[in-house]
Order: sequence, then structure tokens, then C-alpha cells
Amino acid sequence: MANSHLSSLNKDEEFIKLCFSLAKKGLGYTSPNPIVGAVLTVPRLGNKIIGQGYHSAYGEPHAEVEAINDAIKNGYKDLLKEAVLYVNLEPCCHYGKTPPCVDKIIEVGIKKVVCSMYDVNPVVRKKGIKKLTQAGVECKVGVLENEAKELNKFYIKWMTKRLPYVTIKVASSLDGKIATYTGDSKWISCKQSREYVHQLRTIYDAVLVGINTVKVDNPYLTAHKVGRNPTRIIVGDLSKLLLKRYNVFNNEAKTIVFTKKSKNVKFFEKFDNLTIYQYKISRISFKEILSVLAQEYFISSVLVEGGADTITMLLEENLADDLIIFFAPKIIGGKDAKTFFEGEGVKYIKDAYELKINKIEVIGQDLVITAKFKK
Amino acid sequence: MANSHLSSLNKDEEFIKLCFSLAKKGLGYTSPNPIVGAVLTVPRLGNKIIGQGYHSAYGEPHAEVEAINDAIKNGYKDLLKEAVLYVNLEPCCHYGKTPPCVDKIIEVGIKKVVCSMYDVNPVVRKKGIKKLTQAGVECKVGVLENEAKELNKFYIKWMTKRLPYVTIKVASSLDGKIATYTGDSKWISCKQSREYVHQLRTIYDAVLVGINTVKVDNPYLTAHKVGRNPTRIIVGDLSKLLLKRYNVFNNEAKTIVFTKKSKNVKFFEKFDNLTIYQYKISRISFKEILSVLAQEYFISSVLVEGGADTITMLLEENLADDLIIFFAPKIIGGKDAKTFFEGEGVKYIKDAYELKINKIEVIGQDLVITAKFKK
Repeated sequence: MANSHLSSLNKDEEFIKLCFSLAKKGLGYTSPNPIVGAVLTVPRLGNKIIGQGYHSAYGEPHAEVEAINDAIKNGYKDLLKEAVLYVNLEPCCHYGKTPPCVDKIIEVGIKKVVCSMYDVNPVVRKKGIKKLTQAGVECKVGVLENEAKELNKFYIKWMTKRLPYVTIKVASSLDGKIATYTGDSKWISCKQSREYVHQLRTIYDAVLVGINTVKVDNPYLTAHKVGRNPTRIIVGDLSKLLLKRYNVFNNEAKTIVFTKKSKNVKFFEKFDNLTIYQYKISRISFKEILSVLAQEYFISSVLVEGGADTITMLLEENLADDLIIFFAPKIIGGKDAKTFFEGEGVKYIKDAYELKINKIEVIGQDLVITAKFKK
Repeated sequence: MANSHLSSLNKDEEFIKLCFSLAKKGLGYTSPNPIVGAVLTVPRLGNKIIGQGYHSAYGEPHAEVEAINDAIKNGYKDLLKEAVLYVNLEPCCHYGKTPPCVDKIIEVGIKKVVCSMYDVNPVVRKKGIKKLTQAGVECKVGVLENEAKELNKFYIKWMTKRLPYVTIKVASSLDGKIATYTGDSKWISCKQSREYVHQLRTIYDAVLVGINTVKVDNPYLTAHKVGRNPTRIIVGDLSKLLLKRYNVFNNEAKTIVFTKKSKNVKFFEKFDNLTIYQYKISRISFKEILSVLAQEYFISSVLVEGGADTITMLLEENLADDLIIFFAPKIIGGKDAKTFFEGEGVKYIKDAYELKINKIEVIGQDLVITAKFKK
């Protein structure tokens, strides 16, 4: 009995992990919707998989419906009545861009639903499972819940806080410097690390930098053709830019500039794909910027790529969720060489911001650490 | 044939690795001698191990002699004539504290010697192997040579450069800070990391800090009873210390202070186990200090534990060999919070000091990176 219980646990985890893999195919395209994968199995046939699907893009059918349609297409319509549906998120019960998944699940007669977590969307939360249970569908919630939450961290943040998930990305020397005292920062990290950042950009809805980075580095902030481009967010004072077309204003992607009032605005306004937000106050609160991005642009994730001033403000406002540091095996030195968190800093070690290291990778010659801020 | 050759290679590496393990038992006790392990096998008996040994402490018998004596003690004296001797360093051919190992090897009739590297000691280098070959002993040199050199890096540096091997140890936040702007640095790294440092101290001949660290942190710089204590080296101006007995001047270990002329010297001179070196010039060159330590005290390895000024001077003089960073998952921040390499630093990224990461470990909640400076 004990063994059979264990095997049943492992089986559930195995199929939920398959859902995770399917869900990830939607990475970068479902925002602000969650990424979801679904698998249909028939216990009587040795847990044979009869259908699978994932939410491929915002507005497209949900994973559950995709899996059901896949089973029907595969000729297994009659088996649906004895099928178990695995899915990494509670099935929805509301009319959004598509009809409720729970209705479809009940309609085709699925026997059991196993999911990782309740939806955090208040119009769905626990109501989806309740409706299924009331219709006689056996439900189990909580399989690999933490992993499922990590998978949909962008969605969860956006849905519960009305703010995007914020990841700060930094390339640093081993002594914590992100530039030399002369300001040189190209390139601290190796080529493979920079390509990895291009990959990251395809997952995030937006990439954000301060205006000084635009002026000094003149970056494209695109995915460099490895996938879809993020929206580019520039924060700062447009009057600090020369009157010219910087790379970040090209037509490869949308750009949004948050600037204080400046006579330069007229010049930049004529570019396509560019939105300019003007603030009257001199220092812009990042809370406000992120709030606008989440609520007006449905941006659920932002990759912050610098510079030091921008990162420092975000940290001081406690707005960062994750930190990814690319440590290059170099020593730069210099009392005046910038680290990524300048400002005043904490007074005592006990007051330091604490993080939990989630991942350690070696990329090219660099060491890449992904950590989560403890709140 | 190809397979038999491969198997012979693997067999050699296997026994040399066993030599490494044996050698490591002498870590911290053989200085400035190398650490050496030796294994005797008999090919006819399926490579049966008939004896093994290691150099346990300076002045004690060498590993080769220990292994031969072990074989005799085990009743295998007659088998020595057909034995293969594995050893991680070329056997010595000179009279030091003990008679030459090659004479003993020839005397007992060992058939073959397999070693990792030639000795870097000019009185032995290649002469040991030459004498063995001339006596009809088959010799093979170079098995796992790089690993053998890493194992004896202290000895090699001391023997070839007449300087100790210098490892800089740093506890840093993820943003590169080794203290807050107020100077608070206790404790950045976790308890397990600090215990790991106590272990490290048992391996190094000496631990070195600047006088300011003595004043501010008042450390013991001992191994805290996990093993033998290193010699404590203090560099700076004794007049900066109050006239009191700091922990570093207790009787648990020897202490050497390198100071410029100061009237405080008289007070400190009365402590036991304390040697004071007075310099007349105001800034002491670390090259000179390390040279004195190597040549007058036979110190072949120094663990540098701070603070920022001391580390910066060592780096600027290009005197560091290894860097061990304990990254705590914390963010400290602060433009005025110290990083471990202050000074001016390099002007451009291309001029940065380059390192090779050798080891990545997770210790407690910290991430520990061991890297070697490229010269």
C-alpha cells in the first residue's frame, strides 16, 4: 500500500512536470495571462497520454481546451469520460477571451482533475475547483505547487499586486564593479553571457534602462533576432540626449520613455513606435512607472538592465523581485568605479537586503547567479 | 591493444590519485617541503598494493621511504624487486634532513617509478630521475601533472620565486561590498563559511591582516582549535593601536608585526611569541614583507584576510596567486561602502585582472568561489 501511494504521488508529479514543459512553450507570448500546460491520461490504460496542449498566446485557447481537442483529434473522444486532466493551474470558470474551461471539462465528462495551484485571479480562485467538484469531478490541488508558482511568477505578481515582476540583471566583476572608474563597461561579461541576455529578453515583456545608459552605451535592447523583442522602457530626462536617433528608437520594437518635461520631447515624438510619458515632478517614482506599465500596458515582467542609478532607485524602493548577476572572472578595482547598488546603502550588516540563491550556472567563462529577494 | 593501453593509463592515474590523497594528510605540516604520497604495487599480483606512505611533517621521512618501510613491515620485502613505485613528485637525490630517496629505491631494487612531475628544486630537478634511469629503474614522469602542481602550489612558488603563495580571502555581499558605509562587517558570511575559514587557516603557514583590522575587528586569526594555528602576520603602523593586549597577541600562536618606527613598539615588545619588524620608510612594500617571510621564516603560504587597503596594495603589486570569495546572498549597497579592491583600479575593462574560476561551492547559505589569477 505504501508503495502504491508513493507511485501514485510520483505519477502525479511526473505528469505535472510534463505540464510545466508544455507551459514553457508559451513563455513570452501569453502575458499578462499565465503560462499553462495540460495533459490528459487514462489510468485504466496504464496512464496512457491521450491528449496534451498549452496556452500558446494571449487570446488563444487555454491549455485544457487544447488538450481536450488534441484527444478528440487523436480519436480518443470516448476515453475522455475516464480521463484524468493534469494542469499546472486551476482551470478557469469565467468568460475572458475564451469560454470557461471548467464548462468544457464537465461537458466532455472528465473524471478527475489534478492541478498544482489555485488561480490567484480573484474571479477564478477556488471557484473553478468548486464548480468542478459540484459537478462530480474529483479534484486534487497542490502537486508541485512551489515550482508552479515560480513558473508563473510574472502572472502572480501582476495579478495580485498590479505591478510587473521585476528582475535586475547585472554584469559585474568579482569585486562587484559594473564599470571602471572611467565608466568603461563594454564588455565585462563574455559573449555567451550576452547571448543569454538576448534569450532572457524574449521572455520578459519589457526591458528597462536609465536614460544615461542609452546615451553612453547606445544599446538596441532587442533580442537580437533570437526571439520576439520586448518593449523597451527608458527612464530619465530626454533633454540629456542629443537630438539624434539612438538605436533604442529604431523600429524593431516599441519603446516607452518616462521623462520629465523637456523641450527635446518634440524632436523625439516624431519617431514611430515611441510613446513618451511626461512627468512634471523632477524625480520619478519607480512605483508609479511600474504601476503604469502593469495597468496601462499589461506588462507583467520587466528586466532591468541598468545603470547603477536606476538599479539603486529600484532597490531603495524595494521593487525588485529577482536578481541575476553575471560574474566575470575579472577584478576591476577602484574606489570610484561603480557597483550596481550605490546610494547610501544599509547602515549595518543586519539590515542588508537578503536573498535566496535559486540557481548557479556557468555560462562561457562567467558565473551566473539567480537569486530572489526575501520580502 | 588500445584497450590495454587505456587501462594502463587509468591504472597509473588511479594510483597517482591515491598518492594525492595520502599526500594531503601532510597538509599544513610539511612546509616549506612539498606534500608527497607514495604507493607501491606489484603488477604480477594484479597491481596489489604492498605499501604506502606520505611525508607527514618537515624533517620526517619522505613518502617513498615510508612506503618502502610499510611494504617491509607488511612482509613484502621480497616483492619490492618487482614493484612499481607511484609518487606525485620526483624522488629526491640529495641529502636534506633525510638521505636521498633514490638511493633507497635503487637499494631495495624497485623496478619502475611513476611520478607526476619533476621536482622544481634545482638540486633535484631531473637529477633524481636520471640517477634512477642510470641504475636501470624504468621511469615515467607526467601522470596528472597539472593536478600535482596545484597540490604543491605552495612549495613550487616558494622554491621557484622565493616568495610565499598568496591567497586573498574575502567575504562579500552580492554587490561586492565587504562592509557597510559605517564600517560594519560582522558578519557578512554565514557561520559555516567562517568555520571553513578556520579550516583554511590550518593549511596556510601564515594569516595576514592590516593593522586596522586588528584595531576594528580584534580577531584571533587562529584555527579556533580545528587544527594547528598559522603564524599571524600584522602589517601597518603599531602606533595606531591602543596600548592593550589585542587577541592577536595572545599565546596561542606566533605573531609577526611589520610596522614603521613607533614609540608604541616598546609596549608591544614585551609580549611573548611576538616578533616586531621595524621599517624606516613610511609605506612598506608587500614584496619585501613576503620576501622576508619566505626567506627568514620559511613561510611558503599566506592567507590574506583583509582589510580593503591591505588587499588593494597586494593586488596593485600583483602579488596574489589565488582569490577565495565568500559571496553572502545579501545586498549592502552604498557608494561609500568598501569593496575589497579600492585604490584607482583599472582604466578600461580590457586591462582588468583576469582570473580562472577553479571551484564553486555552496557553504551554508553562501556561495564560495575559488579562482586563480592569470599572470
